[in-house]
Amino acid sequence: RRYAYETDGQEIYRRSFATIRAEARLDHLPEEARTVAVRMVHASGDVALTEHIAVHPRLVPDARAALRRGAPIFTDAQMIAAGVTRARLPRDNEVVCTLRDERVPAIAKAWGTTRSAAAVSLWGERLEGAVVAIGNAPTALFHLLEQIADGGPRPAAIVGVPVGFIGSAESKVALAENPYDVPWLVVHGRRGGSALAASALNALAREEEL
Amino acid sequence: RRYAYETDGQEIYRRSFATIRAEARLDHLPEEARTVAVRMVHASGDVALTEHIAVHPRLVPDARAALRRGAPIFTDAQMIAAGVTRARLPRDNEVVCTLRDERVPAIAKAWGTTRSAAAVSLWGERLEGAVVAIGNAPTALFHLLEQIADGGPRPAAIVGVPVGFIGSAESKVALAENPYDVPWLVVHGRRGGSALAASALNALAREEEL
Repeated sequence: RRYAYETDGQEIYRRSFATIRAEARLDHLPEEARTVAVRMVHASGDVALTEHIAVHPRLVPDARAALRRGAPIFTDAQMIAAGVTRARLPRDNEVVCTLRDERVPAIAKAWGTTRSAAAVSLWGERLEGAVVAIGNAPTALFHLLEQIADGGPRPAAIVGVPVGFIGSAESKVALAENPYDVPWLVVHGRRGGSALAASALNALAREEEL
Repeated sequence: RRYAYETDGQEIYRRSFATIRAEARLDHLPEEARTVAVRMVHASGDVALTEHIAVHPRLVPDARAALRRGAPIFTDAQMIAAGVTRARLPRDNEVVCTLRDERVPAIAKAWGTTRSAAAVSLWGERLEGAVVAIGNAPTALFHLLEQIADGGPRPAAIVGVPVGFIGSAESKVALAENPYDVPWLVVHGRRGGSALAASALNALAREEEL
């Protein structure tokens, strides 16, 4: 080989996680949430990310219990759904993204909102007890909170990591302060995204780190 | 509504890009590459990202010319393929990820390398003149450079943003210093990922920012 590099996948994982645990601050997180934060750092390449992560004490146990019951996962972006490692899911749980549903554009237009928010309205009663990961649109997270406030189905856990410059930080504060007793994980501020959402789901799906 | 938030998707995009242009450093990048960097910041929520972005002067024109010719896009992760907005592609270009090809595990085992690197070997002759985006595995980027060094097909442009703690930074230095005259875009250091790779592709696919 012209280039010297590690080619053992398991060894790369082990050394990566060891580096993250040596460098990243994790002591502000519930103990069970630390493997989730480590995997999110792994997906971003930035140990400073953990400073912005906040996790409700019931997020990890409630999300894991829901997945073991076979609950579906709802996401606001196809990329998140594509990033969930199916072999990690305890019950071959369904991963649902309704953004490309044919009804979405008409609903968005009628309600004067984004397609991402309109797509959330199609999750229906299966949302009750499900695991949600929002990694793209703040409007999707706000819409979900509105639905719950209006007495709609309540998910078991919400991973709220929408990204961006308009409404993102505010949507995550709203989630972390939600008075509906729904446990949450957020990355406060502007950062977030599909890769962080998918990595959090993959860590929740299987307890073992590797 | 209980929560006050912007619901006009186009307005959210416009204000987001305006915020990024006001806050992010872009003057070290080729002028044509700035819309690409802006979209990558948009996907990460972090204006400081641009400090780590470096772009070969021919990356943008060569990648755009290749896509207009109908060249395929090769990626190392399903998430990247899922994140490419098909409506932005000038020729309905094919987006190919071979990671789940059934031949991959046997090749990886025989060669003593990762599945990501093995998957690159399946891109074949169609790689000549194609656009590549590596957003996950440093081993995929190293393997691609080895193939080119060995006289294999040469892509028109390589977006090299693998993420991580083991080999990632080194793989991007190797790409940026490649002596094979293949234009590149990198995020130096550990950061990278599928979201950055997909956003770069989406900016290359269509010249207009929105």
